[in-house]
Amino acid sequence: MVLYSKNIILEHDTFDGFLKIQDGKIEGLYKDYEGPYEDFSDEIVFPGFIDIHVHGWATGSFWFQKTRESVKEMCRTLPFGGVTSFLATSGADTIGEIKKCIGAADDAWEELEEGEIEKRGEKGAELLGVHLEGPFINPQYRGMQKEECCIEPDLEVMKDLYGSFRHRQLCRHMTIAVERGHAREVLNFCREQGIQTAIGHSGATFQEIASIRDAGVGGVTHMFSGMRGFHHREPGVVGAALYFDDLMCEFAKQTGMTVSHEAFDIAYRLKGSERIILSTDCSGLARTQSQFDHYVRKIRFVKDGDLVRLDHYDGRQEWIDPGDYEAVKELEMSYGKSVKNMAEHTRVTWHDIMRMTSLNPARYIHVNDRKGSIKPGMDADLTIMDQELNLVSTFCRGWEIRDYCQ
Amino acid sequence: MVLYSKNIILEHDTFDGFLKIQDGKIEGLYKDYEGPYEDFSDEIVFPGFIDIHVHGWATGSFWFQKTRESVKEMCRTLPFGGVTSFLATSGADTIGEIKKCIGAADDAWEELEEGEIEKRGEKGAELLGVHLEGPFINPQYRGMQKEECCIEPDLEVMKDLYGSFRHRQLCRHMTIAVERGHAREVLNFCREQGIQTAIGHSGATFQEIASIRDAGVGGVTHMFSGMRGFHHREPGVVGAALYFDDLMCEFAKQTGMTVSHEAFDIAYRLKGSERIILSTDCSGLARTQSQFDHYVRKIRFVKDGDLVRLDHYDGRQEWIDPGDYEAVKELEMSYGKSVKNMAEHTRVTWHDIMRMTSLNPARYIHVNDRKGSIKPGMDADLTIMDQELNLVSTFCRGWEIRDYCQ
Repeated sequence: MVLYSKNIILEHDTFDGFLKIQDGKIEGLYKDYEGPYEDFSDEIVFPGFIDIHVHGWATGSFWFQKTRESVKEMCRTLPFGGVTSFLATSGADTIGEIKKCIGAADDAWEELEEGEIEKRGEKGAELLGVHLEGPFINPQYRGMQKEECCIEPDLEVMKDLYGSFRHRQLCRHMTIAVERGHAREVLNFCREQGIQTAIGHSGATFQEIASIRDAGVGGVTHMFSGMRGFHHREPGVVGAALYFDDLMCEFAKQTGMTVSHEAFDIAYRLKGSERIILSTDCSGLARTQSQFDHYVRKIRFVKDGDLVRLDHYDGRQEWIDPGDYEAVKELEMSYGKSVKNMAEHTRVTWHDIMRMTSLNPARYIHVNDRKGSIKPGMDADLTIMDQELNLVSTFCRGWEIRDYCQ
Repeated sequence: MVLYSKNIILEHDTFDGFLKIQDGKIEGLYKDYEGPYEDFSDEIVFPGFIDIHVHGWATGSFWFQKTRESVKEMCRTLPFGGVTSFLATSGADTIGEIKKCIGAADDAWEELEEGEIEKRGEKGAELLGVHLEGPFINPQYRGMQKEECCIEPDLEVMKDLYGSFRHRQLCRHMTIAVERGHAREVLNFCREQGIQTAIGHSGATFQEIASIRDAGVGGVTHMFSGMRGFHHREPGVVGAALYFDDLMCEFAKQTGMTVSHEAFDIAYRLKGSERIILSTDCSGLARTQSQFDHYVRKIRFVKDGDLVRLDHYDGRQEWIDPGDYEAVKELEMSYGKSVKNMAEHTRVTWHDIMRMTSLNPARYIHVNDRKGSIKPGMDADLTIMDQELNLVSTFCRGWEIRDYCQ
């Protein structure tokens, strides 16, 4: 198929012309074309958004459910928020539970990549692999992670986790508290295996980070949250992330609540769109298997039979069907809406957005040979927005998903 | 007299040539000149450093002594550290004590500006006026100021203080906690009188600052210290200073102790040399009249007869003669050494240094009609350093002071 737009966002340019898709790939870009095409004249065609930090979304939660089905549900629904590929993200659980996550990712990947899903016409966002957020995190900076499951970095445990992947290329990213235990050994191991590492849920001092950078740590996870904050005598993780030019800052969805728009803006001015990665850190809250306390939103999510009950701190209660996409999609801000919200508070160009949502994460987790930019030969992953940055359509490897976009 | 240098730092250029001084003014800049000249070929000729925040220096303390003589002593010795003009800075004292400061400044100014001193060959740094640091500051963020003297901003008190100046043009700068009392009225009054205001010793929230910026507040005092720190959900005074482009950040001497070099560097990257003012915030610690606890340096300074005793937190004791310049000059870092230290940790050009030390403070306190840059007609205030930024010589309105420079 062919689409036309005046605003196709290439890596270094904006292209006004036709984009031809063939067999899930971008076949070519043309100034002239005769034949039928889908018209996105005034819309903006971005390379598809890549979410490297998403535990769950709406009706599916890798973190809470740990099943093949939950991953498949994420593949199905993430495009509704503009995401065309992602890392299913685990949390601090017991080793056994994390292995259940890994198994679920393996299972889903086998099914999805062996084409069965395509036959059923359910192609969706691509599972790129797993982001292990923990278990090697600092309990003091655990945020909403389970305290008892935050353990010290240990090479044998890491090898055990890595070894439990049937498809090792799915092990793509690890968040780690670099000040703890045998972090250096784990970092070195990850580097050897091509696993991107990031500092997160960490109480590291500036100096601790300075002295471990040579082990290849690439950035920080959910910048500002779950880390030693900035102080002018101890710049901490935040200060190190701002200070060291090469560290990437992954920012969880910009609601303005967890991280104020001004804090984002300050970081943006320092790091530039070249060193920021947007993510959602969504959980699929409705899929909690017991209860989950969201202290920032001031709601406790409690599984209640087939429903999820929302206990608001102010006493109100609501019951929602966790399988009803329309009912749960507003529980967390989608990737697309986060982009729009961010752009309303920080001066960014379309190319800045392209870098933060697609090019940077693709490079970060080493999938930039086929994701992260629009050019011939790349996967036909596209996220199309109108000029107010409302989502219009997503293409996942050439397959258009338009119904739920808004 | 005439001096020559390859590196005369003009506002927008570097001049290689001769600078002629006549009657305390810069008479002109010349490419060619026949006659005797002082040779600073390889040195850097900056416009004289202006210290807008200095309570005392070495053997003289306006804050502690509150006398005409203490101001004159500061005029005499500040050039040894590269400073050619300054604001004598008071602290949070009782209103009566602050008025003693004001009286001392008036007295010294009358004597100094009526030329008597010139006859005696004691020309030195120029007293530009007074910086009132308090009394309208927040006791919770008082730092080393007296808690009982931190009072709420009050227009009548401000008018009383201003009215007690015999030479009102000396009232040039006020540091104020903008979140307290009738801050807006005081800010408006200061603006009407041409008194520059800055936020300092303040617990203001970001929003409080955002809503009072229209009252003309120009910057923050000793950036990072004595103010609500940065948090990603409440950016505070630090966040506001970083976020709002027009707010100037005054930085107290860069020892790396009070504010880490990395914190300075992060602020520098955001604000640029256009929005930073260097100062010393020196006190003339040896001149304490009772005792002064320096909790950052971990020394208590105690007046002990004619001497000052240094009670180190680790138990060591030293006695020093507070009138012996050589003995006390190392108690605090000089302006010149702070500049060198800063430049060793942050990538700055000579023009960046010129802006932070001279042009910006001159504009800030409205003396840029005769200070802050090197051009014909301006006061012949010069600070000359070698290429390693060691002080070589200072000129105060044409009068060279070289003996103590190092």
